Amino acid sequence: MSDKNMPQTLNIHNQPTPFLLLNRDKLERNVAHLRQHTDRLGVPLRPHLKTVKSVEAARLILSNGNGPATVSTLKEAEVFAAAGCHDLIYAVGIAPQKLPRVVALLNSGTDISVILDSVEQAQAVAEFSRQTGVAIPTLIEIDSDGHRSGVAPGDPLLIEIGNILHHRGAELRGIITHAGESYHCKTLPAHQAMAEKERAAAVACAEALRKAGLPSPVVSVGSTPTAHFSQDLTGVTEVRAGVFTLFDLVMEGAGVCQTTDIAVSVVATVIGHQRQKGWIMVDAGWMAMSRDRGTSAQAVDQRYGIVCDMAGKPLADLLMVDVNQEHGILALRPGSQQTLPELPYGSRVQILPNHACATVSQHAEFAVVRDGSDEIEACWPIFRGW
Amino acid sequence: MSDKNMPQTLNIHNQPTPFLLLNRDKLERNVAHLRQHTDRLGVPLRPHLKTVKSVEAARLILSNGNGPATVSTLKEAEVFAAAGCHDLIYAVGIAPQKLPRVVALLNSGTDISVILDSVEQAQAVAEFSRQTGVAIPTLIEIDSDGHRSGVAPGDPLLIEIGNILHHRGAELRGIITHAGESYHCKTLPAHQAMAEKERAAAVACAEALRKAGLPSPVVSVGSTPTAHFSQDLTGVTEVRAGVFTLFDLVMEGAGVCQTTDIAVSVVATVIGHQRQKGWIMVDAGWMAMSRDRGTSAQAVDQRYGIVCDMAGKPLADLLMVDVNQEHGILALRPGSQQTLPELPYGSRVQILPNHACATVSQHAEFAVVRDGSDEIEACWPIFRGW
Repeated sequence: MSDKNMPQTLNIHNQPTPFLLLNRDKLERNVAHLRQHTDRLGVPLRPHLKTVKSVEAARLILSNGNGPATVSTLKEAEVFAAAGCHDLIYAVGIAPQKLPRVVALLNSGTDISVILDSVEQAQAVAEFSRQTGVAIPTLIEIDSDGHRSGVAPGDPLLIEIGNILHHRGAELRGIITHAGESYHCKTLPAHQAMAEKERAAAVACAEALRKAGLPSPVVSVGSTPTAHFSQDLTGVTEVRAGVFTLFDLVMEGAGVCQTTDIAVSVVATVIGHQRQKGWIMVDAGWMAMSRDRGTSAQAVDQRYGIVCDMAGKPLADLLMVDVNQEHGILALRPGSQQTLPELPYGSRVQILPNHACATVSQHAEFAVVRDGSDEIEACWPIFRGW
Repeated sequence: MSDKNMPQTLNIHNQPTPFLLLNRDKLERNVAHLRQHTDRLGVPLRPHLKTVKSVEAARLILSNGNGPATVSTLKEAEVFAAAGCHDLIYAVGIAPQKLPRVVALLNSGTDISVILDSVEQAQAVAEFSRQTGVAIPTLIEIDSDGHRSGVAPGDPLLIEIGNILHHRGAELRGIITHAGESYHCKTLPAHQAMAEKERAAAVACAEALRKAGLPSPVVSVGSTPTAHFSQDLTGVTEVRAGVFTLFDLVMEGAGVCQTTDIAVSVVATVIGHQRQKGWIMVDAGWMAMSRDRGTSAQAVDQRYGIVCDMAGKPLADLLMVDVNQEHGILALRPGSQQTLPELPYGSRVQILPNHACATVSQHAEFAVVRDGSDEIEACWPIFRGW
């Protein structure tokens, strides 16, 4: 935004490329759609803000603009707390050195829970709670799907951790899980089964805590796919999801959204042609798109993204097939019978990303538009760091 | 660096994780090593600053601290120009909308060349030169290896472009090429042949321009591999290279450096264990490492990076095998006979990246250390954007 030669009225045709375009109406529809679903199931949403890392976007995503949220870094916690969001879960296993910042947030009036899945962590959190006189709210992470972290359901470790937290100074809040394997589900029944598996595991672990005389007021589940395909959330107290706010080609490939639901794209300018190779060169590479190639593991590989015209309509079979740091190569999908579109030097395209979280993190701001308008109505800062 | 609870003396054991560690001595040795090589061949270096995006690092990389440099964005050009670097090539094909910023730099006393490979671009540059009365220095990009952009050697387009630039208002400076395919060379003879191919193509095109009565004072070649393996640079006026300053696992896999030459790593903290899976969890994911998996196309796939102890020594066969946004999973290389090392909760590791440019771009600063010291002697800001 520092270009001295920029015209006064910013629009998608004169904003310097590459830039990150956000359709605010799509964001709002995506949020409303999931909220309706979880409302129907009687469970509140706790959106994950790691996808947007923007206070302005969070206002549209959170209930009442500052309601319950999930974060992936303490930097996010601090920024959103400063913006008035005072009900947070820091959903990455707590490291001992991070506890002072957690207590500082608690002492300044933000309710923030940490998560953990080991005796060592529980001892560290309990001890720091005693040292500081601040009972740190803590959720025990369980592993509902073998994807990443967490205590296996049925493992007596759960009760051991619960006892340490509850009896030695921390505040045991309950259970949290994230069925990350849901990203790999391919059919509606598989998605529904994964959602139920996530729910059932979390509820069973909460019940196990309660049977052991331990509290579990919170039973927190979620991932974008399981949140959308859940049919019953009995026993669950909140649902988390993040990428649903913007959506992306991985979520499209997983059957969770349509291409038209994707709220972000990268706008790039054509800088050349390698006609004998069928290539169109643009001024956006991995620095603008990220190196994320999530769709490479799916049925349809979208390479570095689907290329759309400046009205947001996909150009038939045109993909960003490869990237360097500041170069992108557009070409037809392998095997395509289409003709390479005429995209003259200086023309612009919009590229839909594989993974919204990764692409957003490459940018310092969203250029915000509304449905059917080319005017950039706002630029929302995106922060980063830890 | 905003943590209020941080102790006064920063070192690699107390700096909040994840963070980007830079060994300044390694950087200086890498730069001295390549400079000795190109000095011996009698050609000056024009380092590419896209890898570091740091003014402080550039001081150590450039001759006299502000000598000739290459950049990949106009933001880089503007930042380094403001820091006193007034001899630049913007080495991405010029887009028409970027010309006002180029002329603004020229008018403020920075010599900056643009590059192009088409008639349309040449016409745009020539016309903008006439409009502004500023003859924009321009290099014609040639395609020495089929990798990306550029005019094919022998194509009459070269002279057509040259004539437009030279006779209609721009300043034709000569030829530029980048043998990006060199990243895929596997043997010393292949590297040497690629370097010679790059040189020969560039020199032949410069000769073709001169035979047509056009100037070509500049013959600019380079990539990190070709720069290191060149044996003769007759006819070349400058060599460009960027990632050599920091090196990475892709360059190690390509035989250009040793693991011990890699000057950057990401420091992470152990936050958990999934012992039945042989996993160690850390608090650095793709947000800290990037999604770059350049070594996946090489003989030895290093997944998301080689894991070292805090003295920088690789832990036998331990890799960062997978990542999520803020989680990393460490495990033994598939097929390894080693035992998973004891890395207790709260301990730290250093992870060597696939691609230094991509990993650096995920961070806002370098934590700088010297050989054999754990003390962070400085934090150098890293900028980004376009």
